[in-house]
Amino acid sequence: MTGRDAGADIGPIGNSPVVILVRPQLADNIGSVARCMANGGLFHLRLVAPRDGWPQERAWRMASGADRILDEAQVFETVAEAVADLHHVAATCPRPRHIIKPILTARGAAAELRAATATGLRSGILFGPERAGLENDDMAHADMLVRYPLNPAFMSLNLAQAVMVMAYEWWMADEPSSPRELMTNETRVATKGELENFLGHLVRELDDCGFLRNEPKRPGMVRNVRHLFQRGEVTEQELRTLHGMITELARGRNAKRGG
Amino acid sequence: MTGRDAGADIGPIGNSPVVILVRPQLADNIGSVARCMANGGLFHLRLVAPRDGWPQERAWRMASGADRILDEAQVFETVAEAVADLHHVAATCPRPRHIIKPILTARGAAAELRAATATGLRSGILFGPERAGLENDDMAHADMLVRYPLNPAFMSLNLAQAVMVMAYEWWMADEPSSPRELMTNETRVATKGELENFLGHLVRELDDCGFLRNEPKRPGMVRNVRHLFQRGEVTEQELRTLHGMITELARGRNAKRGG
Repeated sequence: MTGRDAGADIGPIGNSPVVILVRPQLADNIGSVARCMANGGLFHLRLVAPRDGWPQERAWRMASGADRILDEAQVFETVAEAVADLHHVAATCPRPRHIIKPILTARGAAAELRAATATGLRSGILFGPERAGLENDDMAHADMLVRYPLNPAFMSLNLAQAVMVMAYEWWMADEPSSPRELMTNETRVATKGELENFLGHLVRELDDCGFLRNEPKRPGMVRNVRHLFQRGEVTEQELRTLHGMITELARGRNAKRGG
Repeated sequence: MTGRDAGADIGPIGNSPVVILVRPQLADNIGSVARCMANGGLFHLRLVAPRDGWPQERAWRMASGADRILDEAQVFETVAEAVADLHHVAATCPRPRHIIKPILTARGAAAELRAATATGLRSGILFGPERAGLENDDMAHADMLVRYPLNPAFMSLNLAQAVMVMAYEWWMADEPSSPRELMTNETRVATKGELENFLGHLVRELDDCGFLRNEPKRPGMVRNVRHLFQRGEVTEQELRTLHGMITELARGRNAKRGG
């Protein structure tokens, strides 16, 4: 198999949902699917009646190092065999008709799959072939359907993209990241005292150079400067840089005046 | 341009964030990106110094009908020019160093981009080249960074997948779908009265055939049957089918007994 990246690891493999590709057509897509699975922490791949047989070297070439997923992929003849040892099965489908079943968003399904997995149940997610999608007989093996809320005017969703969204939501369903934080790396956000110290320095120099000479307007101008620097979550390191800038900008004038 | 799907539409194009691919290498990826953008309702594409020039026929072949996005893609020499008319810029980056900037998850960024767009501001999202990602100088043009919470043991995220996740979150940030509902299509969930009517029919026949002849166990068995049918959100149509099944199953015995 070509394309192996000896350095690539995919992390610990636990009781994560099985990705089941039903009658997949293109080996390239199977490889891309493996890569997406690794991105989202899904490691178990099953193939039901892959059109061109299995293994296919092209899959490994597209997997960007997610070789272990392909190496351990299992092949089945039917959906029934592929889901036989699972407790809980979801089926992705863009627009099912004449079906009575719970239908979940990818996000809702990820939450349910996490919950099932946490209790030790084995679950799987069915994805249909590239062109046609799953057939009604395939979906009849599933406990629930998964429909992605995406642009209804453009329904052509690539197989790997479909797996990517599900894998991403699977990962996010157990992800503690805050939706927004300030990344400061080596430094930290300045305290209000440090900020005030800088503003004092700035205002002294602005007074000194005459920028704030309009006495009636002075309080408003000082307030606006304070507002500006409060807004940006200034760091301690940036404050030191700003102190230096003010000092240097004033130096020529101060030296001239002193001389 | 080949690969056009005359029937493909991508929906109404509004003030959605601009996707800016910085020094993209492969035309295939640019085409896949356009397809993902259409999936998630993003329509404005800009290319900064595409390695192989622009346009490239291969991109249209990979776009699965999202031609309009490629047809109207704009090319720029530098990131500065590509973001000049935007008010708010996000930069995607896996692991930035020595940078002080707000860092958001894709979900958090989508919410902020929705909020900015709602006030009429024009926003954009920078994506780096396939291998190296964005450089620090590129990121310095951004108000915020976007980091995807994904498997840290497998960081190789395809460019189109990166756009897919962002486009998906953009769409989800304005998506009213309930995370779980029961899809019933032509029918509807049965009322408790209809369910009770069926259970009455079932229990009568079970009494009649002797299945419930163990009097001490009878109440518990009836309760368990009631629990089973409560659990599955049975529809009115399914109840009619079940009524028919019970009637037919009992018919031979009833006829025999009658004869």
